[in-house]
Amino acid sequence: MLITRNPKIRAEQVIARCRRLATLTETPGSTLRRFLSPPMRDCHREITRWLNRLGAEVTVDAAGNLRGLYVGEQPSSTRLLVGSHLDTVPNAGAYDGVLGVVLATAVIEALEGQRLPFGIEIIGFSDEEGVRFGTPFLGSRALVGRLDEELLNREDAAGISIRTAIEDFGLDPREIPLARLQTDTLAYLEFHIEQGPVLDSLACPLGVVEAIVGQTRMDLRFVGRANHAGTTPMHLRHDALTAAAEWTVAVERAAQSEPNLVATVGRVEAKPGAANVIAGEACVSLDVRHKSDDVRRHATEALLRQAEEIAERRGLSFQSNILLKQNAVAMGPFLVDQVEEAIRKTGCEPHRMVSGAGHDAMVLAEKLPSAMIFLRSPEGISHDPAESVLLEDVEKAIECGLHLLNQLADSPEFQKRMCRA
Amino acid sequence: MLITRNPKIRAEQVIARCRRLATLTETPGSTLRRFLSPPMRDCHREITRWLNRLGAEVTVDAAGNLRGLYVGEQPSSTRLLVGSHLDTVPNAGAYDGVLGVVLATAVIEALEGQRLPFGIEIIGFSDEEGVRFGTPFLGSRALVGRLDEELLNREDAAGISIRTAIEDFGLDPREIPLARLQTDTLAYLEFHIEQGPVLDSLACPLGVVEAIVGQTRMDLRFVGRANHAGTTPMHLRHDALTAAAEWTVAVERAAQSEPNLVATVGRVEAKPGAANVIAGEACVSLDVRHKSDDVRRHATEALLRQAEEIAERRGLSFQSNILLKQNAVAMGPFLVDQVEEAIRKTGCEPHRMVSGAGHDAMVLAEKLPSAMIFLRSPEGISHDPAESVLLEDVEKAIECGLHLLNQLADSPEFQKRMCRA
Repeated sequence: MLITRNPKIRAEQVIARCRRLATLTETPGSTLRRFLSPPMRDCHREITRWLNRLGAEVTVDAAGNLRGLYVGEQPSSTRLLVGSHLDTVPNAGAYDGVLGVVLATAVIEALEGQRLPFGIEIIGFSDEEGVRFGTPFLGSRALVGRLDEELLNREDAAGISIRTAIEDFGLDPREIPLARLQTDTLAYLEFHIEQGPVLDSLACPLGVVEAIVGQTRMDLRFVGRANHAGTTPMHLRHDALTAAAEWTVAVERAAQSEPNLVATVGRVEAKPGAANVIAGEACVSLDVRHKSDDVRRHATEALLRQAEEIAERRGLSFQSNILLKQNAVAMGPFLVDQVEEAIRKTGCEPHRMVSGAGHDAMVLAEKLPSAMIFLRSPEGISHDPAESVLLEDVEKAIECGLHLLNQLADSPEFQKRMCRA
Repeated sequence: MLITRNPKIRAEQVIARCRRLATLTETPGSTLRRFLSPPMRDCHREITRWLNRLGAEVTVDAAGNLRGLYVGEQPSSTRLLVGSHLDTVPNAGAYDGVLGVVLATAVIEALEGQRLPFGIEIIGFSDEEGVRFGTPFLGSRALVGRLDEELLNREDAAGISIRTAIEDFGLDPREIPLARLQTDTLAYLEFHIEQGPVLDSLACPLGVVEAIVGQTRMDLRFVGRANHAGTTPMHLRHDALTAAAEWTVAVERAAQSEPNLVATVGRVEAKPGAANVIAGEACVSLDVRHKSDDVRRHATEALLRQAEEIAERRGLSFQSNILLKQNAVAMGPFLVDQVEEAIRKTGCEPHRMVSGAGHDAMVLAEKLPSAMIFLRSPEGISHDPAESVLLEDVEKAIECGLHLLNQLADSPEFQKRMCRA
């Protein structure tokens, strides 16, 4: 069995590298690195240096994804794809996305030159957050053949299309089809910070993701009648904000009473929005997620019925608008079991969990068996400069990666099982 | 007894005059007329023409109030002050304020030259809404001696002080003390649209105000922890918006369970305010009004305790900030009885009511017995171009005004009772 030497030093290096990449930013003083922005080039240069030292050949595909192949025992061997995204949200932390690429690099470094029956392709996706063009997963969508003409015409706030952004970066959008997954790719593996408080609350360093939740997003609008807060008795009001408030409390209750359901009202606007005017209109957002599409659908329908009932009882009208409906995505069961075993070998109790956030693995799972390993997020903090990982958890993650590679290398079934039919 | 001829024609003229004044605006296409703005001069000119025809001498005092005296039987007789305000909110209707001045004029016109034992001073206040300087009642405050040096230094959005605005209009701020109530003023009477739905819901054309409510205004802030809407299980959340929603519903319930109490949350802001982020902070406004200061104080205290309890139960912190605390103001009981009788004589059942909004009468009541007559607001609509009055209600108001003058003229007690000790 492979074991890593100097695990603590490797983990320290992972953290130092993530922090170094966080300084490559569009906005001095905070971290922002969007799809094919100038600091993305610096980020590519930095990672390329590390990967070149491992003997990996590194390229940037036409969708701006950084790709480096650490070849297997045979130059013609199949490959395991490992990575995450290199773009960030505004005012980001140092670990979301980047950690997955840096950890993949560290795990290969920990192999210390040893070759496996399969190659390892490291990938740094150009866009997962969707900040620049308002639509996420540009990088991974190119790998599954979904970065299409329509999407390429989409423009950022400055009126620059994705196509032009690609050209401006020195890439050729006509070569996007070449960015597709190689047919010899066996599976996809992604390390990522949890970005939630579950592992921290359970004192678990690592979790294995068995599914990525489905999601419904809606806008709701209660319309009553704006009126003077002093001159309108309570019984003659048609207050849109109290209706929205009653419903917001109902959303919370519904989610609390269904295991694993999360439902959130994160945005609210009351119009006219003055202290001395009863709100004539209240708009709220709804975000519902669950690993079961049926549970999510039923919960959403029940919440809409409740909103209608509240509006009717209060003499208001009510409208809703669906913004997003996305089904849950299962991770590859064989891989999930293997990750679980690898976590157990590090001495941690593996926690099987559902990812409440979308990830590149969700896109790749359309074509490949995929799995994710979550590292505990202290206090669940993410998308914030205070985002962190624990040194000992990074050590465990490198160790887990090595155990997993070892298991897969030793598994007579792996190459057979993982091949697409 | 005085009766008016051509009551319908007089009422039609009142409505036409209000609509004419609504065209005198800072903002073409909608009505806005702030303290000493250029259209206020046109407004003064128009009303002056009507009052001059009645033989009234018209001046503009140093606080910008239009004042015209219709003298009594004796040139040295005491006076009754009747009027309302001439300024408006943005995108105003045609009746709020203006109607009180136009009706006062119409009532004098209906006297058809007859003189009373007391004079009638018509007043058109320069500012009641407080739109230009963010503080209301500039006009009436000058009459009670509260337009002081500190207030005169207050600036509008353009950096122009009240003092400068007065000078720019051609008036002399040093003469503000001369704007004070004449010592021979017996009482103050104000016609005003209700700006609420009570009279409309009762099918009453006219109401008599017996008190103007006291008011408490606060800002409240719930602080929890912003977090990812997908990755944070319900039991690990500290959602500031659901706390604010639960409290908003509690505010409504509390007001519903206490007769005549109104309590309103009209403004809400969730931060960061994104659909996929649990709100870490939620700020809401509170407006509580009641004719009893004790009831209002107890209700406000109970609501604050409830907010604290909700915050504590949810693991949030909570802050509140008092913006306004204003005691209720009683109208003069003798005048209220007289108005009630005058309304009854028009064939309407008088409705005694509390004004939920502040009015100039509230300021004048500090120094003078005061009363207000409310005209029904169809559908309770005000501060909106759809604001209206019914022709037949205006007829009743003119008739009521004549009955009231007649009663006061016939009342041996009036001049004695009303004089300040």
